[in-house]
Amino acid sequence: MPHNIAILGASGYTGAELIRLISVHPSFRIVALTGDRKAGQPMASVYPHLRHMDLPDLIKIEDLDYSGIDLVFCALPHATSQAVVPSIPNHVKIVDLSADFRLRDGEAYAAWYGKPHAALELQGEVVYGLTEFYRQDIKAARIVAGTGCNAATGQFALRPLIAARVIDLDDIIMDLKAAVSGAGRSLKEHLLLAELDENVKPYSVGGTHRHLGEFDQEFSKIAGRDVRVQLTPHLLPATRGIVMTCYLKGEADAVFNALDAAYGSEPFVQVLPFGEMPQMKDVRASNFCHIGVAGDRLPGRATVVAVLDNLTKGSSGQAIQNANLMLGEDETAGLMAAPVYP
Amino acid sequence: MPHNIAILGASGYTGAELIRLISVHPSFRIVALTGDRKAGQPMASVYPHLRHMDLPDLIKIEDLDYSGIDLVFCALPHATSQAVVPSIPNHVKIVDLSADFRLRDGEAYAAWYGKPHAALELQGEVVYGLTEFYRQDIKAARIVAGTGCNAATGQFALRPLIAARVIDLDDIIMDLKAAVSGAGRSLKEHLLLAELDENVKPYSVGGTHRHLGEFDQEFSKIAGRDVRVQLTPHLLPATRGIVMTCYLKGEADAVFNALDAAYGSEPFVQVLPFGEMPQMKDVRASNFCHIGVAGDRLPGRATVVAVLDNLTKGSSGQAIQNANLMLGEDETAGLMAAPVYP
Amino acid sequence: MPHNIAILGASGYTGAELIRLISVHPSFRIVALTGDRKAGQPMASVYPHLRHMDLPDLIKIEDLDYSGIDLVFCALPHATSQAVVPSIPNHVKIVDLSADFRLRDGEAYAAWYGKPHAALELQGEVVYGLTEFYRQDIKAARIVAGTGCNAATGQFALRPLIAARVIDLDDIIMDLKAAVSGAGRSLKEHLLLAELDENVKPYSVGGTHRHLGEFDQEFSKIAGRDVRVQLTPHLLPATRGIVMTCYLKGEADAVFNALDAAYGSEPFVQVLPFGEMPQMKDVRASNFCHIGVAGDRLPGRATVVAVLDNLTKGSSGQAIQNANLMLGEDETAGLMAAPVYP
Amino acid sequence: MPHNIAILGASGYTGAELIRLISVHPSFRIVALTGDRKAGQPMASVYPHLRHMDLPDLIKIEDLDYSGIDLVFCALPHATSQAVVPSIPNHVKIVDLSADFRLRDGEAYAAWYGKPHAALELQGEVVYGLTEFYRQDIKAARIVAGTGCNAATGQFALRPLIAARVIDLDDIIMDLKAAVSGAGRSLKEHLLLAELDENVKPYSVGGTHRHLGEFDQEFSKIAGRDVRVQLTPHLLPATRGIVMTCYLKGEADAVFNALDAAYGSEPFVQVLPFGEMPQMKDVRASNFCHIGVAGDRLPGRATVVAVLDNLTKGSSGQAIQNANLMLGEDETAGLMAAPVYP
Repeated sequence: MPHNIAILGASGYTGAELIRLISVHPSFRIVALTGDRKAGQPMASVYPHLRHMDLPDLIKIEDLDYSGIDLVFCALPHATSQAVVPSIPNHVKIVDLSADFRLRDGEAYAAWYGKPHAALELQGEVVYGLTEFYRQDIKAARIVAGTGCNAATGQFALRPLIAARVIDLDDIIMDLKAAVSGAGRSLKEHLLLAELDENVKPYSVGGTHRHLGEFDQEFSKIAGRDVRVQLTPHLLPATRGIVMTCYLKGEADAVFNALDAAYGSEPFVQVLPFGEMPQMKDVRASNFCHIGVAGDRLPGRATVVAVLDNLTKGSSGQAIQNANLMLGEDETAGLMAAPVYP
Repeated sequence: MPHNIAILGASGYTGAELIRLISVHPSFRIVALTGDRKAGQPMASVYPHLRHMDLPDLIKIEDLDYSGIDLVFCALPHATSQAVVPSIPNHVKIVDLSADFRLRDGEAYAAWYGKPHAALELQGEVVYGLTEFYRQDIKAARIVAGTGCNAATGQFALRPLIAARVIDLDDIIMDLKAAVSGAGRSLKEHLLLAELDENVKPYSVGGTHRHLGEFDQEFSKIAGRDVRVQLTPHLLPATRGIVMTCYLKGEADAVFNALDAAYGSEPFVQVLPFGEMPQMKDVRASNFCHIGVAGDRLPGRATVVAVLDNLTKGSSGQAIQNANLMLGEDETAGLMAAPVYP
Repeated sequence: MPHNIAILGASGYTGAELIRLISVHPSFRIVALTGDRKAGQPMASVYPHLRHMDLPDLIKIEDLDYSGIDLVFCALPHATSQAVVPSIPNHVKIVDLSADFRLRDGEAYAAWYGKPHAALELQGEVVYGLTEFYRQDIKAARIVAGTGCNAATGQFALRPLIAARVIDLDDIIMDLKAAVSGAGRSLKEHLLLAELDENVKPYSVGGTHRHLGEFDQEFSKIAGRDVRVQLTPHLLPATRGIVMTCYLKGEADAVFNALDAAYGSEPFVQVLPFGEMPQMKDVRASNFCHIGVAGDRLPGRATVVAVLDNLTKGSSGQAIQNANLMLGEDETAGLMAAPVYP
Repeated sequence: MPHNIAILGASGYTGAELIRLISVHPSFRIVALTGDRKAGQPMASVYPHLRHMDLPDLIKIEDLDYSGIDLVFCALPHATSQAVVPSIPNHVKIVDLSADFRLRDGEAYAAWYGKPHAALELQGEVVYGLTEFYRQDIKAARIVAGTGCNAATGQFALRPLIAARVIDLDDIIMDLKAAVSGAGRSLKEHLLLAELDENVKPYSVGGTHRHLGEFDQEFSKIAGRDVRVQLTPHLLPATRGIVMTCYLKGEADAVFNALDAAYGSEPFVQVLPFGEMPQMKDVRASNFCHIGVAGDRLPGRATVVAVLDNLTKGSSGQAIQNANLMLGEDETAGLMAAPVYP
């Protein structure tokens, strides 16, 4: 049975990626698209690559008629989502792709995002959207908060290791390499091709990246104690993809076994043979996450590298995966397309 | 009803692209993959991005059992295909992606490829695989020859114009910009990232590019007289995509009308509004072709730009489209996924 | 003897390129840098790659003391230059890198740039800065107008051919591929890496590119009659470089001979052996221009391809070359560094 | 006084980079170039970007006449250098850019490179070429061994910290991102643009990268005890540049002070203000190294990031710097050109 879908904030990259994925989804039907600054325009003028699709024109959110809509993807900017979500009728399920509902704790939100949350009362209801670890809750949820793309990558690498207690929780180091579409379609000097091509640029160093809030929340919850990781993000001269290199104190074989056991039956998370390393491009434009584990010449050290596409598995693909569960569809519906390589 | 598919030469880029497209095809089932130098290996070791798929290991062509196989994609190197195709049993349909069966004329083949054709007797039987223009023949064909990727792009731009007699046939100039995957996975110095990144390089200048053989054959056939175009190819610092800029003598509105009329009901070929230009990335990893038409300040001149993805619409996507027709499936089956953008 | 140099508009790419080139110039000494929006900042905060240099901080133009300054490079935005140049004292020589003084004719300026010129009276005095063709005038000039980067490339390819009357002046077609730094450091969506990487995008089609004004002016002047070329520009996924592919009606050997004769003793313009084609990267970050000529299978056709680096030979390198002449230095001073390859 | 220079192995990237740098060197004169497979060819056919230079043709090493040569740069492949260097006459000074003479200890060489060294007797004589730390020895040396490019980057980041004892020597983690030209002009599948563009790929994981031999040797020597670091290299979709991100246990301000003190008067190594991070492109095609230091939300942690251009400061620029010292020239001669940005 088809499900009627609306996308709020369809003019950004995650909106376009949702439309791309839904273009081959067996049961999702796009019935409304909103885009405030571009309201009134056809999608083909915002994203000419979608011109072959029969899509509704962009409208303003306030002009959206929610009757008949089964599920809304909120691909709105951070901080906008918390203003909109409370006003969505109860019969509509919501997958939010912004950062607004990722943190359970109001104080943590205020600390990481610099102002109080505007819809704290919803926080209790929202389920964190890392599908592989919140599957049952997501099935029953009305609102699911998509994870940060970098936060997803790091959690795929580390959650099973924290749960299995095979690594030192006080010495987790994560070196993040992130392609530029994670920053969205915003006009900033350092995102220009002339600036970023042939470049690599550390940013948000020293423990200031907002996705650390998600790591803190989730890793501490698993461990039953406070866990604080060290993270240095780097911007890459590439459009899509994330590489998270994790430096861990622990036995590499135990690390491998914990990951292998955790993901053995998962459709989207692939653990490579011990010692093999994933490459960023191998998951391009797909919902897959590849994880590699290696030991080191230094005893008691392990390196885990996880890669995924920030726009797909890190954002819009994850959102579809969650929507599938919320709407009673097969979790993998519309998501099994192989990565685009080369 | 599922169709059993074999891919010969599955270790090249067009082989990998066939597998990617078939990964979401509703009725194609891959039952055999060959790869001479890599026979014995699992596909996941040749293309780790396919590791989630349940694919047969690579075997040698001579070990392939054709019984039960409905259709074979020949993604073999040029010159190899003509040695293999004659030995394939008659019950097997064949879509050949090499250059071996594109030219109808033995002398033309020998002139462009530097040696006599080894299977001239099959030439009469083979249908040229530009689907939009040979649809009925392809439905009935046992062997279809996939077009050159650049040849496809140029023909989408020009066939309707030659047929409609709206351009001067003696003054067609084509400036080709081609991404590097068109050269395959071969180890050549100028294909190294260090050489090609931040570079653009003309090649096969002066009327020596082999795809000119296809233009000569097809354009002359449509015109009912010899047509010879001028073409300069340029290698781009990009992985996928072709931009063909055509400089024509003719009235731009007549040019636009001829293209618009020709492709009005085509699912994959999109003519943009007059004066708008396509960009290469808008068709990335998809089976779409976008075409733009502009006039010029110089009267009687028109510029037509066509873009497509060389590995998809220019090669493996076209091959699937043809196979769909040959096997009685919907022509668009498995091919309607939106382009990957950004 | 050192010359005191000021750069107006030093915060743009051409300003930074001027500083880079002057960093190894034997007799130029930077004594002032202006940048309106960034006045008060050290250059190292605008361009950290220059942090090792002992440069003056950015100031506002109105705070610039022209006493003691020998020459000013105006790297201001188009339209700003014509407001500033008239107020520069007469003892100061000026090399203007903007579009403001390239066209001699007020009506032509107004037609191409959409408004009347604000300093028409200076037009008579200004010399067009294509050094190889205006050398004597430049030596004597007080104001030199740097050429458009694309205009320079096309003129290097075609001026000798028009002068030698070896091509049909009524059928000149130029296909331009231009890297993105030609658009400067401006914040526009299509200049983002996520948009342009793996992309090629035609722009200003149909005879609307402003550099056509320069071609019209210069080519007509050489020919002694109106000459109007056809041009289609394409934006490349690269930072620096221009490739101009010219489709000409003429005998290729006559074309080659005309170019070879024109540039035989030029230090910066290199004509490749007949039939060889230049590649964009071979002139990267240098003041060289490479030109290749090929014939075609179609009789009476020639293809000429010229490449240069838009920021160097196309702009700031050309400006230094002109300044050298204006200040009595060797024309090549500070400009003979080999291109950066790979 | 001019010095006569020969380059052995001039057809590789480090050879081309030497020629580029010497093109503006005030006193180096190239008198011979060797290239075994390309002997007999002019450099312009191997590297067309050098066509404007008046260079000797490539010859075979055995045809090289050493009389009159003051200094030889050996840019030969690893393992070839140790076969050639012993036969070079004593009057010739040698800067070796290969890995052959970097390690002092024969056993260490054999362990890292997989076979015994062929010229062990020279090891005692050779000086390790990290100029900033071996300046006096280099001035007096006949043979200097250029460092690994990654090894140089890591040592610039860490040597002063080990010497100042401000970090925990038992917990040094280095995450390396390296552009592809470090792998040379060799034909390997993973170096193709189609494979590496939009990709990042870990390699030599687990403590197997050969440059670790240099870290072991040098860091242990400084510390007066064995020091073993953990390193994960990643291949970048870029041509030039290295980013070394070091995760350290130590007080960030002490770390900053140690670096600032060490490099305060160095011409090429720039320590950024505390908390600022360098970007890879800011040193492109230059002999500069930029270093940034940040603290962390986790007490007692510091992150140091060093960037340089592998072909310049990491290899050929370093070689020129050393040759300057060996020949009594100013250390910075020919090396002060600003980086190429953008």
